[in-house]
Amino acid sequence: MAAYTTDQRQLLTGSTFAVLKPATTKQVSDIVRLAAHHGIGIVPQGGNTSYCGGATPDASGRQIIVSLERMDRIREIDPVSMSISVDAGVILKNAQDAAAAAGLLLPLSLGAEGSCRIGGNIGTNAGGLSVVRYGMTRDLLLGIEAVLADGTVVSDMRKLRKNNTGYDVKQCFVGSEGTLGIVTGAVLRLAPLPVRRATAWLTLAGGVPLAELLGLVRRESADLLTTFEFMAARSIALATEAMIDPSSLRAGPGGAVLVEFASSSRHLDLDELMEAVLAEAIESGWLEDALLAQSGSQRTAMWRLREAIPEGEKRRNGSVKHDISVPLSSIQRFLDLAGSQVRSFDADLELSVYGHVGDGNLHYNVLVPPDVDRLEFTKWIESSLSLQLYDTAAALGGTFSAEHGVGRFKKHLLERYGDVGRIAAMRRIKTAFDPADIMNAGAVVRPLGEKSAC
Amino acid sequence: MAAYTTDQRQLLTGSTFAVLKPATTKQVSDIVRLAAHHGIGIVPQGGNTSYCGGATPDASGRQIIVSLERMDRIREIDPVSMSISVDAGVILKNAQDAAAAAGLLLPLSLGAEGSCRIGGNIGTNAGGLSVVRYGMTRDLLLGIEAVLADGTVVSDMRKLRKNNTGYDVKQCFVGSEGTLGIVTGAVLRLAPLPVRRATAWLTLAGGVPLAELLGLVRRESADLLTTFEFMAARSIALATEAMIDPSSLRAGPGGAVLVEFASSSRHLDLDELMEAVLAEAIESGWLEDALLAQSGSQRTAMWRLREAIPEGEKRRNGSVKHDISVPLSSIQRFLDLAGSQVRSFDADLELSVYGHVGDGNLHYNVLVPPDVDRLEFTKWIESSLSLQLYDTAAALGGTFSAEHGVGRFKKHLLERYGDVGRIAAMRRIKTAFDPADIMNAGAVVRPLGEKSAC
Ligand SMILES: Cc1cc2nc3c(=O)[nH]c(=O)nc-3n(C[C@H](O)[C@H](O)[C@H](O)COP(=O)(O)OP(=O)(O)OC[C@H]3O[C@@H](n4cnc5c(N)ncnc54)[C@H](O)[C@@H]3O)c2cc1C
Ligand SMILES: Cc1cc2nc3c(=O)[nH]c(=O)nc-3n(C[C@H](O)[C@H](O)[C@H](O)COP(=O)(O)OP(=O)(O)OC[C@H]3O[C@@H](n4cnc5c(N)ncnc54)[C@H](O)[C@@H]3O)c2cc1C
Repeated sequence: MAAYTTDQRQLLTGSTFAVLKPATTKQVSDIVRLAAHHGIGIVPQGGNTSYCGGATPDASGRQIIVSLERMDRIREIDPVSMSISVDAGVILKNAQDAAAAAGLLLPLSLGAEGSCRIGGNIGTNAGGLSVVRYGMTRDLLLGIEAVLADGTVVSDMRKLRKNNTGYDVKQCFVGSEGTLGIVTGAVLRLAPLPVRRATAWLTLAGGVPLAELLGLVRRESADLLTTFEFMAARSIALATEAMIDPSSLRAGPGGAVLVEFASSSRHLDLDELMEAVLAEAIESGWLEDALLAQSGSQRTAMWRLREAIPEGEKRRNGSVKHDISVPLSSIQRFLDLAGSQVRSFDADLELSVYGHVGDGNLHYNVLVPPDVDRLEFTKWIESSLSLQLYDTAAALGGTFSAEHGVGRFKKHLLERYGDVGRIAAMRRIKTAFDPADIMNAGAVVRPLGEKSAC
Repeated sequence: MAAYTTDQRQLLTGSTFAVLKPATTKQVSDIVRLAAHHGIGIVPQGGNTSYCGGATPDASGRQIIVSLERMDRIREIDPVSMSISVDAGVILKNAQDAAAAAGLLLPLSLGAEGSCRIGGNIGTNAGGLSVVRYGMTRDLLLGIEAVLADGTVVSDMRKLRKNNTGYDVKQCFVGSEGTLGIVTGAVLRLAPLPVRRATAWLTLAGGVPLAELLGLVRRESADLLTTFEFMAARSIALATEAMIDPSSLRAGPGGAVLVEFASSSRHLDLDELMEAVLAEAIESGWLEDALLAQSGSQRTAMWRLREAIPEGEKRRNGSVKHDISVPLSSIQRFLDLAGSQVRSFDADLELSVYGHVGDGNLHYNVLVPPDVDRLEFTKWIESSLSLQLYDTAAALGGTFSAEHGVGRFKKHLLERYGDVGRIAAMRRIKTAFDPADIMNAGAVVRPLGEKSAC
């Protein structure tokens, strides 16, 4: 059971008396009906790769886990309509591969794509590496099938770009982290498959205004930009240390950025376009150096370095993650303010800062010192420094959770930073869908009437 | 009062004892509180340009109209974050102009943009002319401020691309047509301003597979495609007749398509790209002719023709509109089936078919014969032929309302075609937000407990 009752970061272990693995929507509905009848709580689970403890049952042992892993069928690909219909238990990578085999792109891409599942992606509104071009899971969702807390099946598996026929019920499930019902199927939008890519590694000068650099690259790439990943020098060093075959790519005083353009057209010369854009950036004095990947293996090296950062952090002793987002116009100010907060909190702390800056999203991670207990340290930071950092983000109009959600770990933050009116509306929604709090009780919010504010 | 109590198409005239025009969110909240206390219904109104009677009060005279027209302040433009914050009563065109003045694009564009208002755009989830590239209103919405049916203010005016902190309450308001609360403010996403455009008029050969043509154009334009508007020959003839200074643009046996690419980068040659794409389409035998606009005035002529179609229909005697969407893979089949339905219903009926085919969206309009009463004819068609057409769309996985909504006119259609589980969920949402049915009663759905299924 351990794989089901412990969260991905091993911060929380819950307890359950049963992991159920339905194979059909009908079975999901039957399970939910029975559980509701007996007042048994349900925790829906996909790949269990999420970061906020939302897929982990509580300690009571009275919640069952409903794993979607056996519902892993790709139902249909319609290349002309550019859509894919899947069971909610399909692993993201498998859906990507099926789309690619039909000559199309499923443009949701994240580090966990080999094990996270579509239902979990919807449950968390997953973002990832190409949001700047293609949006988050919400932006890709065309249709849904879901089982409500009383067993009712909502069946809205249409592959329509436009369907304004009353409230768009599927939106409620996106980012609801299993608290409103169980998603059993989805239709996702596909994009034309890129046939050309240009990938570049930008070594940043000190004091480069990240948002302005992004603005330039977005504008002058004509929005062909698919990736704009920032990495601080320390994160790159960690990643390099973790690699068997380290690359010679380096960070400047301002860090580095991985930039990628993609085109489904053979009529555009992306390398030429990238060169023109980089020339402008160099002219602005923002870059120490810019390297345009000349081959597939150079491109792969750039990506491998970016992707090795979480592993690099882990090998050291892990990190306390802050999944922060601020308006692009405040990114620099956040980095400055947060940096001095960290320094005055404890001058010995080290940071690993990287992320999807194309979307205003920073993984602002505090490294766990090599010699301390990771869990203890995490608890300590999260109850002290983390709140200072979140305060700063909030003061700048930002958020304490850009893409990871609330789950069980961030409920107090929602309570602290959430607009009162909005939380009231959330609780109304929860009550509407699940008045008895069957679905993932303890995560995100409680129905009206129950004591906790969230 | 007439301008407020009659819908845009003059199909419905309601009655009211007061049109209120609050100037602040606080005033909106006070009005709602007072109305709720006295059990008085509220109809929110923006520009009153919508097509489904959702902005028109019922005949009882017991609903008040709350017009947002005085709340027309642009609160902030943040060019670096690429966002605009507005009062809900701002006219779309004014918001577009403000964005353009800051060097950015508000990529929502529709025929009514000179009079519709942002709150109405959110209320209907407006689509329009560039959905294929930029999405519908939902896709552009970053933040919201709204007053719930008990006067509570939800304040979530963040300009974040990513903010996964529980249910995304603002999504509920999108397309809710005034039935869940009153939107008082919004933050919208902006895009880099195009500095280059290429516009072409495609004269279609007979039997051209529209969806395949679209697929080719999307793919080979690297998604720089902003517009793909289809027009049948009859629609073009109507438009031409309505123009003082008619153009020489013509339709082929398959009609015509207006295609536009846009680029915010000066580094791309869009005319060259368009020529390459059109060459491929011509090679496929799908085009009789293709004209690339060589000047601003040629471009304008193409757009004016497209935009004159509604006027052309009006001058004749109007049309019975069917705002249909089907999966792209079924567009041809829909056109074939619907065409024969119309012919066998009444061989003398004429059609005007055009629309945002880039999104699978067809305005499948039946022309009102010149000599009949428009209202009588509309009622007759809507109770007979329209249902056959909607049946066909539904059988193909399509919908009876792509972008216009449900309002008061299409409630019976929602009841007929809506998935039972989904309607149940909608009624739960309505109940959660507005149990006493204060907000726009009679439109879209009723709370649980009330008799009507919708
Ligand atoms: C190495 C790594 C990199 C990552 N990178 C990113 C990233 O770039 N961007 C990002 O957004 N996330 C990232 N994540 C986090 C994680 O992968 C995502 O949150 C992912 O969407 C979770 O999917 P899952 O199937 O594992 O969901 P789970 O962890 O199983 O569940 C997540 C939540 O959704 C609920 N849920 C699961 N399935 C269903 C269902 N069928 N119906 C209803 N509710 C359901 C659960 O109850 C839980 O609350 C990363 C994780 C790792 C380990
Ligand atoms: C010539 C013409 C062309 C058009 N082309 C298109 C098109 O291409 N695409 C498209 O989608 N539509 C189109 N429309 C329809 C219409 O313009 C849109 O539906 C538009 O979004 C309506 O905005 P409005 O401000 O006029 O809303 P209204 O008509 O005033 O209201 C629409 C609905 O929203 C509610 N509402 C209004 N304001 C608020 C608020 N502040 N809070 C809560 N609810 C509110 C109302 O109660 C009503 O139910 C067109 C209309 C015309 C006349």
